[in-house]
Order: sequence, then C-alpha cells, then structure tokens
Amino acid sequence: MMELNEQDVEDVAVGAAILGSGGGGDPYLGKLMCLQALRRGKRIRLVDLEEVPEDAFIVPTAGMGTPIVLVEKLPNGSEPLNALRILEAYVGKKAYATIPIEAGGVNSTIPLAVGALADIPIIDGDGMGRAFPELQMTTFFTHGVAVSPMSMADEKGNSLLISALDGYWAEKIARVVTIKFGGIAWVAIYTMTGRQAREAVIPRTVSLALKLGRAVREAREMGRSPLDHLLHVSGGFELFTGKIVDVARRIAGGFTRGEAKIEGLDSYRNETLTIQFQNENLVAVKDGEIVASVPDLIIVLDVETAQPITTERLRYGQRVAVIGMPCHEKWRTPEGLKVVGPRYFGYDVEYVPIERRVKGGGLK
Amino acid sequence: MMELNEQDVEDVAVGAAILGSGGGGDPYLGKLMCLQALRRGKRIRLVDLEEVPEDAFIVPTAGMGTPIVLVEKLPNGSEPLNALRILEAYVGKKAYATIPIEAGGVNSTIPLAVGALADIPIIDGDGMGRAFPELQMTTFFTHGVAVSPMSMADEKGNSLLISALDGYWAEKIARVVTIKFGGIAWVAIYTMTGRQAREAVIPRTVSLALKLGRAVREAREMGRSPLDHLLHVSGGFELFTGKIVDVARRIAGGFTRGEAKIEGLDSYRNETLTIQFQNENLVAVKDGEIVASVPDLIIVLDVETAQPITTERLRYGQRVAVIGMPCHEKWRTPEGLKVVGPRYFGYDVEYVPIERRVKGGGLK
Repeated sequence: MMELNEQDVEDVAVGAAILGSGGGGDPYLGKLMCLQALRRGKRIRLVDLEEVPEDAFIVPTAGMGTPIVLVEKLPNGSEPLNALRILEAYVGKKAYATIPIEAGGVNSTIPLAVGALADIPIIDGDGMGRAFPELQMTTFFTHGVAVSPMSMADEKGNSLLISALDGYWAEKIARVVTIKFGGIAWVAIYTMTGRQAREAVIPRTVSLALKLGRAVREAREMGRSPLDHLLHVSGGFELFTGKIVDVARRIAGGFTRGEAKIEGLDSYRNETLTIQFQNENLVAVKDGEIVASVPDLIIVLDVETAQPITTERLRYGQRVAVIGMPCHEKWRTPEGLKVVGPRYFGYDVEYVPIERRVKGGGLK
Repeated sequence: MMELNEQDVEDVAVGAAILGSGGGGDPYLGKLMCLQALRRGKRIRLVDLEEVPEDAFIVPTAGMGTPIVLVEKLPNGSEPLNALRILEAYVGKKAYATIPIEAGGVNSTIPLAVGALADIPIIDGDGMGRAFPELQMTTFFTHGVAVSPMSMADEKGNSLLISALDGYWAEKIARVVTIKFGGIAWVAIYTMTGRQAREAVIPRTVSLALKLGRAVREAREMGRSPLDHLLHVSGGFELFTGKIVDVARRIAGGFTRGEAKIEGLDSYRNETLTIQFQNENLVAVKDGEIVASVPDLIIVLDVETAQPITTERLRYGQRVAVIGMPCHEKWRTPEGLKVVGPRYFGYDVEYVPIERRVKGGGLK
C-alpha cells in the first residue's frame, strides 16, 4: 500500500499524459479532482495486485468520450463516483477497490479521485498500459473478464445499466449514448475478482506513470535534458525530432481523428514523419514506411521540456520529439493483436514490435 | 375481463392499423405472435381499468424503431417478453398486467402476445389512443408517470436498464441504442400502479381497435362499403378520395419521413391533398391549407376495401380514401399539445380540433 501526496499526483498526471500516447484526454482535469479530494482530507491509496484478496470485488471506473469536450464540461467529481455507486447498487456489493481501465490520459487520474472520494484503494495497474479509444481494447476483455454489467452516468442525472454480449457491443452501445450525453459519460465496467485481476491486469502502471512524471520533473529541476532522462527511465526509443508543419483533425463518431505531419530537424533533416491518430497516435510513417504502430506507444513531446502533447493539442510550428515505447507483452499475443493491432485500426500490415523495428532490419 | 380468440386478434390487427394513422408498423407481425401463442394454448385476457387493483404493478411493453426493419428482423416472440422480465427482475416485482404504449400499429398487438406468453392480463387501453413516433408522446408521460426504470433488449442478447431524467431523455437515449441494435429494440417502460393507470391511460383502445376491425370485416362480409361502415362506427370524417401520384420517403434518425401527394377523384376532382409523415401521418394539406393535423388521426385507406395503408406501404397509383378521427381529449390540453401538437413536429400552426375544421369556418 502506497499513499500518494500532491506532488505524486502531479507526477502521475505528467506520466499519464506520456502513456496516453497522444490520447486519453488531458490528465490535468483528473489531477484537479485528485488535488481537491486530497485537500478535503481524502486519501489516495495505491494497492499492489499481490495485496488484493482473491475474492475482492473490483470495479474499474473511467470517463468515456471525446476528451476535448471535457475541457468545456468540467466534472464536479461526483459523476464518476456516481457510476461506481450505480453499479454497486445493481450488483448489491460494495467495491473493495477501483482501478483505471487505461493508464494513459485523464482515465489514469480519475479513478484515483474516485478511490479517494469512495474511501477505497486504487489498484496499481490498468487494462491497457497506455490509452486506447474503445472499451473492448483492454486486457480485461482479452483475458475473459465480463464487460457487463456496466453502468453509465452523465452529469445531468441520466444513467444506464448495460448488459452487453461482449466488449464490442458494450463499446457500440455506450459510444452512441456518450455522444447523446453531449460527448462525455462516466462508466463503471469490467467488474472482477482479485483472482481475475491477477490474470487480466497490466500491473504497476500507475506507479510507472508516477516514475515517468517524476523523471521528467527531476531532470528539469536538475537542468538536465528531460527527454534524455525520460528515454533512459522509460526504455523508450527516439523515433524523430522535427517541426509540425500540418495538422488535420476532425471529430467523427465520438472520436478525434486526423494526422500530423512533422518535418525533420537536426539529424532528421530532409525527412518527414506523419502520425495518424484516432484519439491516440496509431502509426508513425517515415517517408512512406511505418516505423511504429499500435499497440506500441507513439508519444509526441515538446522537444525542450518533454511535455507530452495530446493529439487535440498538436499545432503548426511546435518543435517536437517523437518517441516509441514497447507495449505490454499481453498485447503481443494473437488475441491481443486481434483487438488492438494495426489491422483492427484499418492498416493492412503485420505488427512488428518497436524494438525490432528500431534495431534494424537484421532482426525482422 | 374479456378473452380474445383468433378472430378477435385478426380484427384488432386491422383496427390497430387504422389507429396507427399510417405508422406504428404493420400489426401483422404482432398478430402472428398472438396467433402462435393462442395455438400453443396461451390466453389473451383483456382487463378493464376498473378491474385493476389500485396497487397493481403494471408494465407497458412495446417495440421501438423503424417499423420497416421489423419485416426483415422477425421477432421470435421472446424478445418483448424478455424486456418485461428484465424490468421485473430489476424492480423485484412481478407484473400484474401489461398494456400497450400505443393502440396503433404493431405495438397494439405485441403486448397481447407478451401478456399471453407471461400469463398476465393486458389492460384495455394505451398511452396514445393511436400511434406516435417518440417515447415521451404518451399520456403516461403527460400525466406524470415516471419513464424510468426502462428496459431495452435486442434479439441478440444485449439489454439495458435506463434511468432517464424524463421522457425526452429516455427517447434520445433509447433511440440511438435502437439504431445501434439494427433498427429494432424491445422495451418495457412507464411502470405504474393501478391508481396511476386510472389517471394516465386512454381507456378501452384495444377494444376500440377490435370494434373498428370488426366493422370493416363485417361490412366486407355483408357486401357493404367498409369505408362507410368504418366512418359510421369510428365517428371519423372523410377528408379526401383520390389517387397517389407521388411518394417521397427516407429513413433518417431512426424514423421513416416523407410525404405523399394525392390527386382528387370524384367529388375531389381538381384538388390535391398532401400528407406529410414521420412514421405516422402528421398533417394533411389541401391546396396549401391544413385540413387535419396531429394529434388528430389522419388515416389513409384503400378506397374499396378500407384496408389501412401504412406510410411505408404508400405507392404510386393507389386509390385511397383519407379519413380523420378526433384524438382523445387528454391530448387536447395545453400539456398534451406541447408534447404531440403540430408545433412539436415543426409546424408553426395552432392545433384546431378536426371536427371544427371539418364542420367549417363558422366554428373557428
């Protein structure tokens, strides 16, 4: 059991933005909810999977929708807790703990606030190890955790309980309702026991976010290159450095879709990298060839500060570094790749692990 | 208590198609479900509101969606019962009876089948006295019956429980889910007590459908004009007789929208009547002037057989009579007209009761 203080929450938010791979929404809003809870005397207690009883009732919580809408529809903190409460009431059991569905973006910090408000611990782990745009894209789903019952709530007082055939149907149903709710909904989903969690959860991703955020902060404080320090701590790879020269973006079907074109600087001069995204960065293409793809993490950062830039904040003229990080091994199985591999997102290519792409053709 | 036999079911289906005012879907499919239930030894028991205990738990059931899709997605009979069962399980009470939400179209006969299969009576009444396209358009809603909890089920095994702020939100949420379900969903909604039902229900509309259907059949059997007989029995007004010369129709937002143009015959020669519809016929316009509007019933019938023609079956060349019938007085209050008056459907005109329109300007 580890208790997070205000500085930890700040660091987790930065690390979560990195793990967000461009998506998942700005963790800033979840961070505000956490800080507010801490200042009201609530505690954010992170618990390791090993400490969770086998029969514990675990209720993951999350926000769902177009992250950019969140900026205009600030949650007051009670909405995601409400989704948890609705599910608890329906199942007739109190949650032992909550857990993020995704370690990246706003959904990494929201469950911290939910746990604090509900006075329950948050399991140090998640179902993605990063951010992904759809509900079935979790290791909970690929490891057989039932998606239902699922609850949804909006900020006005509407709520739903969904019993879906599978994760794909949960996604389809919840997505259209989220759009009808005005772009953002709050969900509790994939309830599981401690026993199931040990199989299905990607462990220690909240503390990973904390570690990454701390690395960036400490490097800045010490006047060292945050980018170099981050690469060192994360085990990631530098893919590109350059200036954004074009961003095309549209909101469609509840997602932010588009692409950003980056012209190389320094050692990448005369090269162009294009990143295509659907909420998250999906593929990085250099001079017509894919250099990184889902489910590996593609992260765009300010080249000086290593501040991650979400896809909705990419702008012309930004000087950025693009780094890649290996996804968790749970995603590299045939079952995992079926759900989050490049083919699912419409790219007719085989997934090649980023470390093999980066280390050159010899390994292919 | 009255028990319906196969002939009664046939007659109700014809009467329900008349009360459908062009919408509500073809009662034929619900009729098949009823006949199948009867042949399996089930009973369709119609109960009068007066016989219902004050504290009885009443669960209205219905299909929702684009009726034309029903023709291709035949229900096996268990789906609407499933919606009832899901709601019963959630509330923790067994239904004393079910009741149609609308007396027109397929939703008049489906609750008869649900009642038969669940071995509970069906209350002789409904929430519209006709068919309407949206969930809030019920006298249940205008009389303060809570729309929630509401259940939805599809034929694949997906289901939802919805707690909506009001009837409008229930409609918005359920409509997008219905579209995602493939165009048809099954719902249980507006649960009420016997006491509430006595206030909120339009009484004796199932037996009205039976009476209208029987009138048409008996006239045909006796070689008399079914149209004249229907007008006599229904208290309706002949608005027009002519030939359909144009039909424009599109499916949008889960509805069938469009208009039909009819060129006059006989005493209507050189006149043109245009009917605009959204699932149901909304307004009838003769030479630029509205001659009938929602919430009054506008019904298109085959001029020879008095067989009602739904908006999705209107075709070029059909010879039709158009009749109007007064809606129930519950719709003629300011509260009722706010929900189903011409303005709600986008027509900037005052509602004028059809009997005043028909009987001439002197009464206006």
